[in-house]
Amino acid sequence: MRNSTRSQVDPFIVMDVMQAAAAAEAEGHHIIHMEVGQPGTGAPKGASAALTAAMEQGALGYTVALGLPALRKRIALMYAEWYNVDLDPSRVVITSGSSGGFILTFTSLFDTGDRVGIGAPGYPSYRQILKALDLTPVDLPTSIENRLQPVPSDFADMDLQGLLVASPGNPTGTMLDHGAMSALIDATQGQGASFISDEIYHGIEYEKKAVTALEISNDAYVINSFSKYFSMTGWRVGWMVVPEDHVRVVERIAQNMFICAPHASQVAALAAMDCTAELEANMDVYRANRAMMITGLRDAGFTSFAPPDGAFYVYADVSSLTTDSRELARDILDKAGVAVTPGLDFDPVRGHQTLRFSYARSTQDIAEGLGRLKAYMAAR
Amino acid sequence: MRNSTRSQVDPFIVMDVMQAAAAAEAEGHHIIHMEVGQPGTGAPKGASAALTAAMEQGALGYTVALGLPALRKRIALMYAEWYNVDLDPSRVVITSGSSGGFILTFTSLFDTGDRVGIGAPGYPSYRQILKALDLTPVDLPTSIENRLQPVPSDFADMDLQGLLVASPGNPTGTMLDHGAMSALIDATQGQGASFISDEIYHGIEYEKKAVTALEISNDAYVINSFSKYFSMTGWRVGWMVVPEDHVRVVERIAQNMFICAPHASQVAALAAMDCTAELEANMDVYRANRAMMITGLRDAGFTSFAPPDGAFYVYADVSSLTTDSRELARDILDKAGVAVTPGLDFDPVRGHQTLRFSYARSTQDIAEGLGRLKAYMAAR
Repeated sequence: MRNSTRSQVDPFIVMDVMQAAAAAEAEGHHIIHMEVGQPGTGAPKGASAALTAAMEQGALGYTVALGLPALRKRIALMYAEWYNVDLDPSRVVITSGSSGGFILTFTSLFDTGDRVGIGAPGYPSYRQILKALDLTPVDLPTSIENRLQPVPSDFADMDLQGLLVASPGNPTGTMLDHGAMSALIDATQGQGASFISDEIYHGIEYEKKAVTALEISNDAYVINSFSKYFSMTGWRVGWMVVPEDHVRVVERIAQNMFICAPHASQVAALAAMDCTAELEANMDVYRANRAMMITGLRDAGFTSFAPPDGAFYVYADVSSLTTDSRELARDILDKAGVAVTPGLDFDPVRGHQTLRFSYARSTQDIAEGLGRLKAYMAAR
Repeated sequence: MRNSTRSQVDPFIVMDVMQAAAAAEAEGHHIIHMEVGQPGTGAPKGASAALTAAMEQGALGYTVALGLPALRKRIALMYAEWYNVDLDPSRVVITSGSSGGFILTFTSLFDTGDRVGIGAPGYPSYRQILKALDLTPVDLPTSIENRLQPVPSDFADMDLQGLLVASPGNPTGTMLDHGAMSALIDATQGQGASFISDEIYHGIEYEKKAVTALEISNDAYVINSFSKYFSMTGWRVGWMVVPEDHVRVVERIAQNMFICAPHASQVAALAAMDCTAELEANMDVYRANRAMMITGLRDAGFTSFAPPDGAFYVYADVSSLTTDSRELARDILDKAGVAVTPGLDFDPVRGHQTLRFSYARSTQDIAEGLGRLKAYMAAR
């Protein structure tokens, strides 16, 4: 049996780091994990309690494809609370994580060969999911002046059928403000292309609230998840908001490709949305970690980065240190016992001179990691 | 924004039945649900207990893409126990239900336009998932003589890149024995095509054990799930077994398209595999229901069907009653208060003269449903 051409997606380079870190741990070394893209915290206690109660009450069979009506309604309410946006719950689609949202979005909008612009650096799986669906990812190299987010001139003559943006972004943590987001939406719609907004890091913001595309246009796909702010990575539950006249199409694809998102995770997610105290306590940790990272990384000698607006990453230019971020990451792991992600996963062209540091774990770990990084740089 | 061509999948006709049934229930009518494709039972108690304990112990973050090692190992052991097949756990891939398995399989094996043979009648989503991935489903009309399963002569000159079979089949419940399965595998491999075996109903068998493709060849994709025998539909967890040299490719696609199957569901599934007493009690119900259905449907006047080897469906030829199965299903719902599925979902060409009756629910419901069907036919 042969594999298809579309299946030849790139490996994650961070996986090499994670395997090397696991090997080092197996040998008895203590590793600080600044490579991970998920919270160290679990689902809120109220979420687990709700699921335990639901399991006692009855069978968690299939839900309808669009998801539990109560969860869709609660998410719509969140748009009123967070953004003052009036959203019809019928436009909310519960998905199997944001991953499921991407599959549904790309399938709903694009045909074979269609070109979809994505900012570089960006989340590596955008590119790979598009390839696996036989669509064409088009990297848009972003600039430091634009805080590593795309601007309309980056794709003015690119013949795109879609544009996908993320704010706050991964790996950069930078955000698009209302004006920048509006300009991108206008330019995309002006080309007759579809606008997709990945808002998975919303809620994890530091200086100001992130802007949702829905504040600007109803003619956009918004993708979100319970994995980050709601701290439910392994539960594989997220949501999309789609234009009203796309709901039926997305519903039919979802019925066939997913049947439904995990019922247990939907029950837990609904309860998680009201666990505000616990979620804000997590935010206090991220806030403390972020402040420590900005100071500590600079102090260690990693000086070229923009303070993140949101998410839990710092994306640093290390061109003064290396032209091989993979080798540098490996050296940091070996000598400092800190796992970090080489930029090549996020930007195949320029990522050989960047590193991503995650501060999603405990403050104690961050403090220890920064100490190790400082010693490493001093000895270098 | 426009929708893609590939997103124009067919609606499920059974959804109309389900909506009509829900409407009737909302008006106060009592409906017997013989249209559903899932067990009425929930996850085994041991599965829920294991998850409750795991939630107390710590965060259920991402698992590795291929799934929890303990679950992969336990599944491999099951192949020894059930089929006397020695299976390397490294070939087991945990998926987000069989739905996730189909997306991974089709993406791993096929490129745009590739032709994949599927027996008609068959599970409707095969066709729709293939279409959504811009692949070409090729219906193979099966014959009563072959118990509605494909045989090599059905696709001898079809220029297929893949063949997908299901045994026990949905909607028919008929199985492929060792010889029939071998002949299909040989013929498929002889054409240089990929063989895919949907074994989701394994474990729900009545006269003899179902044959897994792995008894015959390692060069096949096997898809299975915890939704049916293990009674965990809404949990969205299943597995695939792939050829050894395909594991890495599937892993990379899974990392990008799914990240992982739901962690909570994987924990519950592992425990479910040892809940033998409860699962066999479910089987006792299916066995009693099946016997009652075979007698009761004939008694009512639905005489043209093969007794199912497995699964929990009877697929009846109703050509003596109607040329419009949709209309007949609607009439049965309205007059008898029994929801059944018109065959058109499973066989767009010949399904206008067939109905699928599910006996997945309680024996009490089945007895009541059969009584109503008898009265309906008598009054007709």
